[in-house]
Amino acid sequence: MEIKVVRKILDVNARMAEENRRLFTANGVFVLNVMSSPGSGKTTILEKSLSLIGIRSAVIVGDICTTNDADRLARSGAPVVQVNTDEFGGDCHLAAHVIENAAREIDLADIDLLIVENVGNLVCPAEFDIGEDARVVVLSVAEGEDKPVKYPLMFRECQATLLNKTDLLPYLDYDVEKACGYIHQVHPGMPIFRMSAKTGEGLDPWLEWLREQVKRKLG
Amino acid sequence: MEIKVVRKILDVNARMAEENRRLFTANGVFVLNVMSSPGSGKTTILEKSLSLIGIRSAVIVGDICTTNDADRLARSGAPVVQVNTDEFGGDCHLAAHVIENAAREIDLADIDLLIVENVGNLVCPAEFDIGEDARVVVLSVAEGEDKPVKYPLMFRECQATLLNKTDLLPYLDYDVEKACGYIHQVHPGMPIFRMSAKTGEGLDPWLEWLREQVKRKLG
Repeated sequence: MEIKVVRKILDVNARMAEENRRLFTANGVFVLNVMSSPGSGKTTILEKSLSLIGIRSAVIVGDICTTNDADRLARSGAPVVQVNTDEFGGDCHLAAHVIENAAREIDLADIDLLIVENVGNLVCPAEFDIGEDARVVVLSVAEGEDKPVKYPLMFRECQATLLNKTDLLPYLDYDVEKACGYIHQVHPGMPIFRMSAKTGEGLDPWLEWLREQVKRKLG
Repeated sequence: MEIKVVRKILDVNARMAEENRRLFTANGVFVLNVMSSPGSGKTTILEKSLSLIGIRSAVIVGDICTTNDADRLARSGAPVVQVNTDEFGGDCHLAAHVIENAAREIDLADIDLLIVENVGNLVCPAEFDIGEDARVVVLSVAEGEDKPVKYPLMFRECQATLLNKTDLLPYLDYDVEKACGYIHQVHPGMPIFRMSAKTGEGLDPWLEWLREQVKRKLG
């Protein structure tokens, strides 16, 4: 019974996601969905990426409460829309109808890339299609190596992993090869970009990959 | 409509949680629910705490997949039951009926303390009463200071915060006072235990607090 209801919600979401996808494609916009645990460094990665990417971009930021992340991202000059999910019952993820609503605040004709910073949660957001073209997961090296096998859906559903906070590696018992092995156990061949958004190290290959994805859709 | 259904699930959960609470109390068991983001160090804290607490304990560990955490905790000698929520539809939290099921695997007459290590998720587990006597949230200093205001329900619902990985502080731009300010903004007067489970520093005040909670219930 409960499962039936959840399925129904996911069906409705899938239909709305397809509508979003049509809208974004009609307006020549590539949509990237960025997901992770709380505190993995999504906002810092996006702050740096927005200033370096060289593509007209906007951001939709999802948080249960606060506009902290939107305030930080707005300094990049890109249009930023904050969604506070406490207005939607404290949702633990961004759903397609929430994105549809938020996207109305953005002039889609003015941008080529829309980045969605999802709610910090390594579980639920992976289940909700929002009409994106690509999904990436950020994993902090401070989180331990085994997260990909403990939260496999997220790593299965994403097209790339951003392994962040590598500047902390000298101070952690963290085995990068082991972590990459776990990622590839769940998602063989998945690109993994090692980076420290804080120092800026390792951002270039990630930005190159993202530019390539955008170019492939928009030409 | 969706909200109505969610409410109904939460109502059923609340009733089952009360049954759990009666069962645990009848058997003289104090139940602690430990929650956090993925990778905050819950398992390491519990490994160390089990060996130092001096109370007969058992653990129920929730993960979507893997028995990694249970394997680590079992080395303490305490009875450990692993719940893999992928058998319950990949649930992002432990619900009361799951705890009821798992508790059947434990001889409650043999223990005074049952620790539940919840699924790594700073959002959903806070909504589900499992019949516990106390709840604590683990926050890693690698996650950034503003998590309490971004995920307020969790910090409101818990009786203490375990601020972990303090050994990393010299390598982070982390303002502990700011983090504590945010915690107390959401939950005035909440005890905050600063610790490094890795080095063992700061564990004593936390263990003393936990012993006091157990004693208050069981005498």
